[in-house]
Amino acid sequence: MLKPAYKFWLETKEGYIFGKGTFELLQKIQETKSISGGAKALGMSYRHAWGIIKEIEKRIGEPLLRTYKGGKIGGGGAELTQTGKNLIKTYLRYKNEFDQICRTVPT
Amino acid sequence: MLKPAYKFWLETKEGYIFGKGTFELLQKIQETKSISGGAKALGMSYRHAWGIIKEIEKRIGEPLLRTYKGGKIGGGGAELTQTGKNLIKTYLRYKNEFDQICRTVPT
Repeated sequence: MLKPAYKFWLETKEGYIFGKGTFELLQKIQETKSISGGAKALGMSYRHAWGIIKEIEKRIGEPLLRTYKGGKIGGGGAELTQTGKNLIKTYLRYKNEFDQICRTVPT
Repeated sequence: MLKPAYKFWLETKEGYIFGKGTFELLQKIQETKSISGGAKALGMSYRHAWGIIKEIEKRIGEPLLRTYKGGKIGGGGAELTQTGKNLIKTYLRYKNEFDQICRTVPT
């Protein structure tokens, strides 16, 4: 049976901003409250994850993360800024709509 | 302003069947009533267009086109089979839904 499949991303007039990979990374950083935790969950290096975040921040001109140094053992971490949270929310909202279309059966 | 963009295609459990390029080719063949007319409209060779059609037919196991030799000058041509017409219809229906999502403004 034929069914639709898709790739989608967010862009501005200037071009590509944010796709599946970055979405997953931000989501994992949010879950683990650290860049290294998010990177590890996706099997990528801290350096690579950091580079992705910096690239998106450059494109949108705003920070996605707020990082802090903790006082506990192994402390420190990262949390999403409102901009970062909004990106995740926007991405997920569209993703749900796309997925819903793909679940409908062709007639 | 952020907005979504997408790529989409039709697939079966076995994999990719049909995307934007083939859709446009089939649509142009339908309009021009010939493979060469459709190919020309998209700036591709007859041979390339023919190869694309044959590849899809192999994947779905059914002919997309019915070709005929005409009696008129420059006669002959091609028309879409019901399968070909259904593919176009299915593709367009999903495309419209995807486009509609992409016209909504992120909140």
